[in-house]
Amino acid sequence: MDSGDRVSCSYAGSMLEGTYITKRDGKAVIKLDNGYNIGVSFDTVTKTADAEKREAVKGGFTREEGLPDLAIVSTGGTIASRIDYRTGAVTSQFEAEDIMRAIPGLASIGNFTSHVPATILSENMTPYIWKELASTIYSEIESGVAGVIVTHGTDTMSYSAAAVSFMLKTPVPVVFVGSQRSADRPSSDNLMNGLCSAAAAVSDLGEVSVVMHGTSNDDYCAIHRGTRVRKMHTSRRDAFRSIDIDILGKVEYPSLEVSLNKHAVRRGSSEPELCADLEEKVGLVQFYPGMSPDVIRSYDGYAGLVVAGSGLGHTSSVCIEPLRELVSSGTTVVMTSQCLNGRVCDRVYDTGRDLIEAGIIEGEDMLPEVAMVKLMWVLGMEDDKEKVRQLMLSDLRGELGGCTPHGL
Amino acid sequence: MDSGDRVSCSYAGSMLEGTYITKRDGKAVIKLDNGYNIGVSFDTVTKTADAEKREAVKGGFTREEGLPDLAIVSTGGTIASRIDYRTGAVTSQFEAEDIMRAIPGLASIGNFTSHVPATILSENMTPYIWKELASTIYSEIESGVAGVIVTHGTDTMSYSAAAVSFMLKTPVPVVFVGSQRSADRPSSDNLMNGLCSAAAAVSDLGEVSVVMHGTSNDDYCAIHRGTRVRKMHTSRRDAFRSIDIDILGKVEYPSLEVSLNKHAVRRGSSEPELCADLEEKVGLVQFYPGMSPDVIRSYDGYAGLVVAGSGLGHTSSVCIEPLRELVSSGTTVVMTSQCLNGRVCDRVYDTGRDLIEAGIIEGEDMLPEVAMVKLMWVLGMEDDKEKVRQLMLSDLRGELGGCTPHGL
Repeated sequence: MDSGDRVSCSYAGSMLEGTYITKRDGKAVIKLDNGYNIGVSFDTVTKTADAEKREAVKGGFTREEGLPDLAIVSTGGTIASRIDYRTGAVTSQFEAEDIMRAIPGLASIGNFTSHVPATILSENMTPYIWKELASTIYSEIESGVAGVIVTHGTDTMSYSAAAVSFMLKTPVPVVFVGSQRSADRPSSDNLMNGLCSAAAAVSDLGEVSVVMHGTSNDDYCAIHRGTRVRKMHTSRRDAFRSIDIDILGKVEYPSLEVSLNKHAVRRGSSEPELCADLEEKVGLVQFYPGMSPDVIRSYDGYAGLVVAGSGLGHTSSVCIEPLRELVSSGTTVVMTSQCLNGRVCDRVYDTGRDLIEAGIIEGEDMLPEVAMVKLMWVLGMEDDKEKVRQLMLSDLRGELGGCTPHGL
Repeated sequence: MDSGDRVSCSYAGSMLEGTYITKRDGKAVIKLDNGYNIGVSFDTVTKTADAEKREAVKGGFTREEGLPDLAIVSTGGTIASRIDYRTGAVTSQFEAEDIMRAIPGLASIGNFTSHVPATILSENMTPYIWKELASTIYSEIESGVAGVIVTHGTDTMSYSAAAVSFMLKTPVPVVFVGSQRSADRPSSDNLMNGLCSAAAAVSDLGEVSVVMHGTSNDDYCAIHRGTRVRKMHTSRRDAFRSIDIDILGKVEYPSLEVSLNKHAVRRGSSEPELCADLEEKVGLVQFYPGMSPDVIRSYDGYAGLVVAGSGLGHTSSVCIEPLRELVSSGTTVVMTSQCLNGRVCDRVYDTGRDLIEAGIIEGEDMLPEVAMVKLMWVLGMEDDKEKVRQLMLSDLRGELGGCTPHGL
């Protein structure tokens, strides 16, 4: 039996239909048509159709002429919450099926191919997987898809969206989507988010974005810029918020009508380009009263450190000397604000001026997390300190400078 | 000449009136009636009235019978922005004068006494000064004032308000106030914030609060709970926001009419009580993808660590083992969420369950910074691990549990 063969099997007295995945612990792992995996004795399994016979079928659905080609790149997370993360039984071929069975309406929006660079809870996302993810998306764009949907756990989705924003220039929509409530809950947002993400993926958008519930009603999804979005609630379906800029647009539900705001980058604005190097030795630290200077010193040897300072971008005076030492020893230090909104300005108060004199780079209005990801990327491609500084101060993907259009 | 004596002096060809402060570098430091300090030769200074003769005058203003007694406790910051922080020339006795000259309307709201436990930029606030601050406020409450105004730099005001909230039980309003724009700027918020803080200090409120601009218009100040407020913009005047609960009330401007919401604790709800011990060896760390487990290990030896996890309160799997080791070696670890809004719940996903099993305490819906300050306070008074856990999980000052009334 080959992976992908259609099979029937007897299980707990019933005959069930499904797809053969793999052999594990002497048993056949079958993905049932309801999306669940079971392990059964090989004796009970009968092949009903070859995997080969299903070539014309993508994601279990017939290819519809006239519909745009879209790619689903899956990394796991709640939107794919039928997966058993402990056993990791799901293989890439069936990921799109999972999602398309859960969200049948997708089939009328596009013809899907799928890739699974990772199957993780998103808190286990790493810079290494970001590189895989960006490469996978880039290959899909190069192959001519109209748009890419990235399904992702919501915990670190904004970090990943920022990482892909920097690593990739894209002429087509790259849409991150997830769900805050798993598919087995009546309030699950996976259906609406999934459909809205597909609508955004075929829209006139031309940048990396996050598409999630815009309100706690099921009325529209907001389209957020990948470098300007943050998860601002642990559980609400409208947890994702654009910080300090307007959303890029909306996808109305259930009409799936897309409206883009003026500052959203349009389809075709840039050629596809991949620069997927990342310096992983970059840290992020939030300043707080009473912070020991040893906390700063513990980043000795790091290539980069982003500080989420207080107010306009401050630390206590006792933290300035160790920051100066870090800079002297070659660490690039970027100052952002834990206020999240507004611009850093270290020219107003003494501590700020001392920080500038110590050699920190003012992170303008970049979110601390976005500045960290950007610094990983900038340090991954550039050694020259002055060029690193210039790149950190330049608006490359709409990550700084408020609502002004950015030069992609 | 004694500190506080009224003097006249000649300076740059003019005769000026002011108050003698101190001798520094052989010169007399005079606070002029316009609020500025000058240093002049003692030859040019003539005493015009003794400090003693001004006993009936508080803060440079005549005591008005029938008005409530209020205390101003100043720690510095932009609202006191005439101070030269480098030289620190201002002494405690004249701090209220500074503020009352800047905000003459205060004199019609109360009779003020003043204390200056610190004159710092608030990024230099420390747990040590928090203890001083709480003790000073407590003494004023014990002496029978109707309310206390704490002027404070905005950078770390919410940390300090939380610290005082825990260290102090108060039957009267304790109102933190600051300004985002210094008095020399036309858009300064010091006048309105100062008047609104005084109105809140004589109101029916009975808890520690922050009073700052509620919108970017000059229409009202919001009253925020000290354990539920966060500076959410680097520069806007309405930077302070209540997180995950409604504001406690409003002070309309310019009418200074105070309205309190239902969940605001009322005046007289508790007896004054001070518990100003703090364990200072407590850290705060924000989890991010790719975080090295060494970051967690660097907190070895700390009494407490608050983690601002992702989503419902997660870290990557590789960070769980070092957290387990910290807990085993005696560090109390509390999990909060970098989402800021919403409740931590580590029972849903594998990483969360692993964290619980490792011995972390779920910080419910506490803000990460508030959880850190609370942990300092709880560890300052309690050694028993189980009691520490119970206290961290209990709503003591409205810091957790959403809008529900809290048991002071």
